[in-house]
Amino acid sequence: MQGTVGELGEFGLIRELTARLPHNPSVALGPGDDAAVVKAPDGRVVATTDVLLEGRHFRRDWSTAYDVGRKSAAQNLADIAAMGAVPTALLLGLVVPADLPATWATELMDGLRDECQVAGAGVAGGDVVRGDTVMLAITALGDLQGRTPVTRAGARPGDLVAVTGWLGWSAAGYTVLSRGFRSPRAFVEAHRRPEPPYHAGPAAARLGATAMIDVSDGLIADLGHVATASGVDIDLRAADFDVPAQMADIGQAVGVDPLVWVLSGGEDHAIVATFPPETPLPARWRVVGEVSAARPGRGGAVTVDGAPWDRAGGWDHFAG
Amino acid sequence: MQGTVGELGEFGLIRELTARLPHNPSVALGPGDDAAVVKAPDGRVVATTDVLLEGRHFRRDWSTAYDVGRKSAAQNLADIAAMGAVPTALLLGLVVPADLPATWATELMDGLRDECQVAGAGVAGGDVVRGDTVMLAITALGDLQGRTPVTRAGARPGDLVAVTGWLGWSAAGYTVLSRGFRSPRAFVEAHRRPEPPYHAGPAAARLGATAMIDVSDGLIADLGHVATASGVDIDLRAADFDVPAQMADIGQAVGVDPLVWVLSGGEDHAIVATFPPETPLPARWRVVGEVSAARPGRGGAVTVDGAPWDRAGGWDHFAG
Repeated sequence: MQGTVGELGEFGLIRELTARLPHNPSVALGPGDDAAVVKAPDGRVVATTDVLLEGRHFRRDWSTAYDVGRKSAAQNLADIAAMGAVPTALLLGLVVPADLPATWATELMDGLRDECQVAGAGVAGGDVVRGDTVMLAITALGDLQGRTPVTRAGARPGDLVAVTGWLGWSAAGYTVLSRGFRSPRAFVEAHRRPEPPYHAGPAAARLGATAMIDVSDGLIADLGHVATASGVDIDLRAADFDVPAQMADIGQAVGVDPLVWVLSGGEDHAIVATFPPETPLPARWRVVGEVSAARPGRGGAVTVDGAPWDRAGGWDHFAG
Repeated sequence: MQGTVGELGEFGLIRELTARLPHNPSVALGPGDDAAVVKAPDGRVVATTDVLLEGRHFRRDWSTAYDVGRKSAAQNLADIAAMGAVPTALLLGLVVPADLPATWATELMDGLRDECQVAGAGVAGGDVVRGDTVMLAITALGDLQGRTPVTRAGARPGDLVAVTGWLGWSAAGYTVLSRGFRSPRAFVEAHRRPEPPYHAGPAAARLGATAMIDVSDGLIADLGHVATASGVDIDLRAADFDVPAQMADIGQAVGVDPLVWVLSGGEDHAIVATFPPETPLPARWRVVGEVSAARPGRGGAVTVDGAPWDRAGGWDHFAG
């Protein structure tokens, strides 16, 4: 396909994008009507929306359209998994400049579609609008399969804190890219295309997780939401984190303690949850801390080895 | 409240916005977690997404934040109704410049909330991001209550075409505003704040509507989608439309045939549906045309009094 999205026109672009979407059993009625119809066998639907802006959340010179699609979908589908639900469908609101190559839009859709397939969901519908810069608004839907949603508010004193997925990889990759390098490849790839452990969310819910959250803004920041919502304190043990040798090497090369990436780096979409202490956790979960009763006037504190963590915190999208 | 959204910060703004939201029985878990949980008693959920950009879909100097909120919600909730479903919930992706007055954002949310209440839905969650201009990405969800969704594809030769709601009012109001006037008030109000006949969508489905669509891009353009998807032709009778005297007066004053507004004007969010000819239609539906078998090589044609309609057509968002 040649040309720009402007040359293709609104309806031509929508045709190109929807033609790439395979049938998914969760989507009873796909794109092309006033609205889609998505199955919700549980009698409830889990729903989340995120907005991603070019220049702020992704860069066209750092990531391919395909990777932007994978990552944007992953970010939303991980939020569904972190409620203990199975992703079912995704809707896309897309803003594109008229001079955007049409292939950029179709490769974006390929990425969204493929990430949805990893998570078991289908692309159900969307909207395309012309604007000055690329913007994606993604809504993901999911099915709790009869389970109680695992919120941020259920952590209890004595619970263990456990993580699964990759922590600090995206931040290490971002550091590498921002200094003009393109390797080590594993970290650059992790930044461009996170791999959330989708299966782990529903599995944690079945194991009796008391609270759960997707690690999007950094582990300390996101556990802060859990601690605040649950009215507890959380202490992490630095020695219990896995810092891969190659990450330590990058840290040494750029003068950054890799624990900063692990504890404060965002966008890995690992999942962190709290469990009653007797819970038998599968091998891919790593226990990294413990929940305690809130100290008077200090509820919601997240400490590392008993002390406040004062290095770079999570993202505030308004502060940048 | 004083100050800008930048001064309030991401989490401060989210607190202000969510504090304005009343409980809604369709929303089992509202804003504040990784995702919301919305009831879907039917075992399916109807879902639609629209993106609205400042300067393209609304102007801050023409509309208050409250009216932008009402209108943006209405546009999405009407899509749910046009499937024959009852709206249950809405999610908001919001992009705001740091220097936007915080009251603009809270008044926008008041408008979204109030329009949702008119339609019976709740605001379930969202995302807030800083950007250069105001952008809204709205996802609406709905419940089919056991009914088959009414798509664009079911119109059959011999069916009647009927409309309910307001046709041409928003376009007439836009013409008035674009010439620097602020009256007649009813048309200006209709442009700023459409009133979709939400109840009419599910009611039409119960009456046996064979196809249905929300009139967002203009009646002829939207019926064109029905005709194409259904593989039929549609003929409208100009004399059967209701052109209010005041609309005729505006038309005369500005030199526009008001039928152009009625047949081609968008954004009223009237509902048009096709029904088997024997269907007893309630008083608020007006029969305006008929479905016929597609002429060879001409399927999908919408004519007026048997002739092609060659005056201003619907919106193509890429053409402007």
